[in-house]
Amino acid sequence: MPDDSIDDLCVTTIRTLCMDAVQKANSGHPGTPMGLAPVAYTLWQRFLRYDPADPVWPNRDRFVLSAGHASTLLYALLHLAQVQAVDPAYETLGELSVKLDDIKRFRQADSKCPGHPEYRWTSGVEATTGPLGTGAAATVGLAIAARWMASYFNRPEYTLFDYNTYALCGDGDLMEGVSGEAASLAGHLGLSNLCWVYDNNRITIEGSTSIAFTEDVATRFIGYGWNVTRVGDANDREMLARAFETFQREHHRPTLIIVDSHIAYGAPTKQGTPSAHGEPLGEDEVRATKRVYGWPEDAQFLVPDGVVERFAEGVGARGRTLRRAWTELYERYRVEYPELADHLARMQRRQLPKDWDAQIPSFPADAKGLATRDSSGKVLNAIAKEVPWLIGGSADLAPSTKTLLTFKGAGAFGPDGEQGRNLHFGVREFAAAAVANGLSLAKVRPYWSTFLIFSDFARGAIRLSALMELPVVHIFTHDSIGVGEDGPTHQPVEQLASLRAIPGLLVIRPCDANEVAEAWRVIMRLRHEPAALVLTRQAVPTLDRAAYAPASGLAHGGYVLADPADGAPDVILVATGSEVHLAVQAHEQLDAEGIRSRVVSMPCWELFERQSKEYRDQVLPPSVTARIGIEQAATLGWERYVGAEGSVIGMHTFGASAPLKALLSKFGFTPEAVVRLAKEELGVKA
Amino acid sequence: MPDDSIDDLCVTTIRTLCMDAVQKANSGHPGTPMGLAPVAYTLWQRFLRYDPADPVWPNRDRFVLSAGHASTLLYALLHLAQVQAVDPAYETLGELSVKLDDIKRFRQADSKCPGHPEYRWTSGVEATTGPLGTGAAATVGLAIAARWMASYFNRPEYTLFDYNTYALCGDGDLMEGVSGEAASLAGHLGLSNLCWVYDNNRITIEGSTSIAFTEDVATRFIGYGWNVTRVGDANDREMLARAFETFQREHHRPTLIIVDSHIAYGAPTKQGTPSAHGEPLGEDEVRATKRVYGWPEDAQFLVPDGVVERFAEGVGARGRTLRRAWTELYERYRVEYPELADHLARMQRRQLPKDWDAQIPSFPADAKGLATRDSSGKVLNAIAKEVPWLIGGSADLAPSTKTLLTFKGAGAFGPDGEQGRNLHFGVREFAAAAVANGLSLAKVRPYWSTFLIFSDFARGAIRLSALMELPVVHIFTHDSIGVGEDGPTHQPVEQLASLRAIPGLLVIRPCDANEVAEAWRVIMRLRHEPAALVLTRQAVPTLDRAAYAPASGLAHGGYVLADPADGAPDVILVATGSEVHLAVQAHEQLDAEGIRSRVVSMPCWELFERQSKEYRDQVLPPSVTARIGIEQAATLGWERYVGAEGSVIGMHTFGASAPLKALLSKFGFTPEAVVRLAKEELGVKA
Repeated sequence: MPDDSIDDLCVTTIRTLCMDAVQKANSGHPGTPMGLAPVAYTLWQRFLRYDPADPVWPNRDRFVLSAGHASTLLYALLHLAQVQAVDPAYETLGELSVKLDDIKRFRQADSKCPGHPEYRWTSGVEATTGPLGTGAAATVGLAIAARWMASYFNRPEYTLFDYNTYALCGDGDLMEGVSGEAASLAGHLGLSNLCWVYDNNRITIEGSTSIAFTEDVATRFIGYGWNVTRVGDANDREMLARAFETFQREHHRPTLIIVDSHIAYGAPTKQGTPSAHGEPLGEDEVRATKRVYGWPEDAQFLVPDGVVERFAEGVGARGRTLRRAWTELYERYRVEYPELADHLARMQRRQLPKDWDAQIPSFPADAKGLATRDSSGKVLNAIAKEVPWLIGGSADLAPSTKTLLTFKGAGAFGPDGEQGRNLHFGVREFAAAAVANGLSLAKVRPYWSTFLIFSDFARGAIRLSALMELPVVHIFTHDSIGVGEDGPTHQPVEQLASLRAIPGLLVIRPCDANEVAEAWRVIMRLRHEPAALVLTRQAVPTLDRAAYAPASGLAHGGYVLADPADGAPDVILVATGSEVHLAVQAHEQLDAEGIRSRVVSMPCWELFERQSKEYRDQVLPPSVTARIGIEQAATLGWERYVGAEGSVIGMHTFGASAPLKALLSKFGFTPEAVVRLAKEELGVKA
Repeated sequence: MPDDSIDDLCVTTIRTLCMDAVQKANSGHPGTPMGLAPVAYTLWQRFLRYDPADPVWPNRDRFVLSAGHASTLLYALLHLAQVQAVDPAYETLGELSVKLDDIKRFRQADSKCPGHPEYRWTSGVEATTGPLGTGAAATVGLAIAARWMASYFNRPEYTLFDYNTYALCGDGDLMEGVSGEAASLAGHLGLSNLCWVYDNNRITIEGSTSIAFTEDVATRFIGYGWNVTRVGDANDREMLARAFETFQREHHRPTLIIVDSHIAYGAPTKQGTPSAHGEPLGEDEVRATKRVYGWPEDAQFLVPDGVVERFAEGVGARGRTLRRAWTELYERYRVEYPELADHLARMQRRQLPKDWDAQIPSFPADAKGLATRDSSGKVLNAIAKEVPWLIGGSADLAPSTKTLLTFKGAGAFGPDGEQGRNLHFGVREFAAAAVANGLSLAKVRPYWSTFLIFSDFARGAIRLSALMELPVVHIFTHDSIGVGEDGPTHQPVEQLASLRAIPGLLVIRPCDANEVAEAWRVIMRLRHEPAALVLTRQAVPTLDRAAYAPASGLAHGGYVLADPADGAPDVILVATGSEVHLAVQAHEQLDAEGIRSRVVSMPCWELFERQSKEYRDQVLPPSVTARIGIEQAATLGWERYVGAEGSVIGMHTFGASAPLKALLSKFGFTPEAVVRLAKEELGVKA
């Protein structure tokens, strides 16, 4: 029998820390942590394989608080379990991550306890959460990664990877579509290393869940192929333990544990009320609740003697033993499997193997050329052969996005022992991106793909890649009206601008096969930034790089591709992707007419902005104000490069359904239109 | 017994039209229409209450092809049923919408048969579809509208509204999260007037659905509270009819009919293969398939005698009878309930009642002021009292977004006979926006709300509002780092730019309560454009409009709010929303220092762009190049207004968790920073 009194003390300590933190901040969400404290405590103390002294141990169990608004619950756990800080090179330091003072400064500037948990800010936070559903969806990626890494790294007698992933979810998490997509995928894959705990507290912001959410969640998850179990009282730690044991015994399906709880458990007037969700309880209610708990009502942020010690002998002792055994195992593994050990070490540090880029092709000049989705597929395969932990797939569009790894041994990742590298996400873009985030959190290198238009569906997760500083590769093909006959529902217009607006995301739209190769060189070297690689459906010429500047200019974001045969340019044509060829055509026509023009290929605005002013002024000399931007997209933002006196040939409406040639003419993407506008800019009569 | 031979002929005519259209276009999706032809035919011929001579009859059953890539199926139905064209005032014309020539010109410029069905382009298309899941989700809005309109307009003996809504969905539709959200909501509401047919053809683009989609859909929908039935063979029209009868007999739950079908039914080598999804069959396979069908293999676009007549005696005759009876009923209703009839007529034409704006408050100057979410709540309530068909709600954030209608009689819309005007969408942003589109398609005037950050989750539907030209009101509060303590996961940065990039969407960010009132005046008059109303969480002053320009300037998108006491301005401060007050503070400080500045309030870029050049140059005189843009958002696009020599005070990173005051200082949104930059712009030493 566990010692109930000390465990009760621990649970109450968590609850009161959460109440106090929210009360002191006068902002936050007290109710959910109070309800869930015994659930999280039971999981951490009795099940989680986690060493607080080494929170980046690769085979640790992952605990993701998908209900990120309940952040104080996580902070209380991190503090009481004495989770250590980690430095940027992922070596442990002897300092606590979340100190009591951080909890006291919950939601204040620079506290390690921000409003919602932030990955890379607070040690022990496995994922940035708060946008509902996305945390749960990311755990599917963590669970896939565990299985994939087990398959790649484990060897007989060397079980390096067998971690489990847990998520705490609220009603909101389960109402969001992304969690449904992810759960369906997890059920399909039979991820028995994944456990979601559903906090069934029956309260949402607008009131009882009965006003909007009366579905039978258990039946739905059974439909997804999950193992579903139920705990009728969140305070019943023995029943909770049995549920977690049920999870651990299940070897074919993910597990959902539905826990009936009371929001703001113990608060005399606020338990079970919507106001306890997102508002401080109020000082009187805090005191009254402490009385109910048998807690000294004047004490704030009280951690009684014995509590930290209890965590140390629970999760702490178990984790230390497991981690030490793992480390010993790994030391032997390094001797026996030095190459794999090297891979694991590089992967953990987000480093690349030697010669990772040895097989990247260079593409000969070719007027007919090929679609950048095709050249990207070739480059991706060339790199993936050398980077075994580069894995990914498509939201049911691999034949179109050209993201299938086709070389021998790449294989598929599926249920029933398929442990290859090609993931099939299904028609689930949001979950695909969220799962990619989860894969990246586990340090494998993920990519996923869809059509650019459907990047809209996944924005909630793309933003999180950027916020978490994860080097996820988002591959978006069919990048313009070049889609043609599928029409305006499938032709992106606003997506480039809206991706460029995301802080920290590199948006790269290469113009030909060799820029694609350079784009991948840039992308693969990223360690803390996601990229969106934007590719054409239709063939584009492969430029003759003897006649035009080398594609390596892509690394600068923008570069001079072509200049007048002699003299300085009078007009500059700036373009990205497929429109670079239109600019080149116009440049040649202008040249024939004796008008001096420059073509600037500008595949990545973000990289260009990072160059020195000197470089930028070389590419776009301030003295040349006659400028034309050309891009088959919304023009928002182009004034940055064409200036007040320049013009933009872009999309001002949605597209239309017709063959591409008809659309180019309809929307003004013709050499004649560019030449005419260039002359207007220069005041030259046509 | 129905005459099987003529019905077989009709089904084969549909199938061959679809094959021929895709083959001639050499682009498109032949397989799904071939598989689903008998399903759609059975529904249209035997159940759909639809008059092809009046495709905008308000009480018609709605048929939405959520699997929009199967568009030829819809076009074949519209042609064979002889659906008439409608003019913009929604009076019927005596001309066919989809002519055989349009089908022959499938996917060509200006054909009435674009790649995916487009609302407002082709008569009889009830919703623009193609982005998977969104069509199905919109049908939930159509079904809610039917129930709401029944409650509002029906009277004893006058059943004006009792239409049913049908959707044809594919695997992709059901994998997308948005359909899950919408289905959960529909089940909660017990929308027994809603029927989804799920085309279980077991094929997706990447291969068999078994690679990614093995969940038990029936069980999932039972979990949602749906009635689920199954038809084992899509060609068994009698079993299909029984399933539709089952739907019609169900009075408490929505119905899902799972139909097992064969993609590219009848094609000798392509039936049941992924290639039949998105590629033409090829001429040889088309011929071979026609042989299988017993069809003349050289005939193209063949409509045998008797087919059009068969449709006329089926859906045509039934629809005519029903619509005529309805029209007679409505004529009597006009006499007995003239006010309601007037409402119905105005609603159908997207007109407003007289005096709709009579109760809009004007707000007295107030330095403390109120949050624009609060003033918006007041204005919304004032308008909603006068516009009974203005209905909406929130994705579980009504207490925060202030969108609850609180006046007597507003009521809630829920299951069990709650037929009020406050919808509870649950934590389901994407579905909320898609449902709002559906409500708008039924001509009620919808709004929905969430935090601006979560507009990301709903972009797929916001875009469709714009593409369909639906006057949906998207209300987004908590619009900046003003969110404060909730931190970067909840602080929008890139959302303003990304909404502004959507063609046809008005993005309005008012600066105070009176601009909010003016924003609503603009929004309510929109008939074919959606708007995004962007509002603060935090209080902002209500400007003294005697001292500053009147708020009616909002209708121009941007206007001069304040000018120097005398003389022309030397520097212009352009701002939106809460930052207008920062600009005003800086302006006053500059004024005190003898520096002449102008403040431009720029709440809606799209409206400003529509003004004459003369007006725009008055507001932003080209001669004044010292300009500063101020907005707590990504700066993308601001160069348009501040020019090459101007500056922008905006967000260049994600936000942070802290009280607002600390954030304003951290990110440089202080009067001092603005004044300093203004001086730099002017070259004045501080």
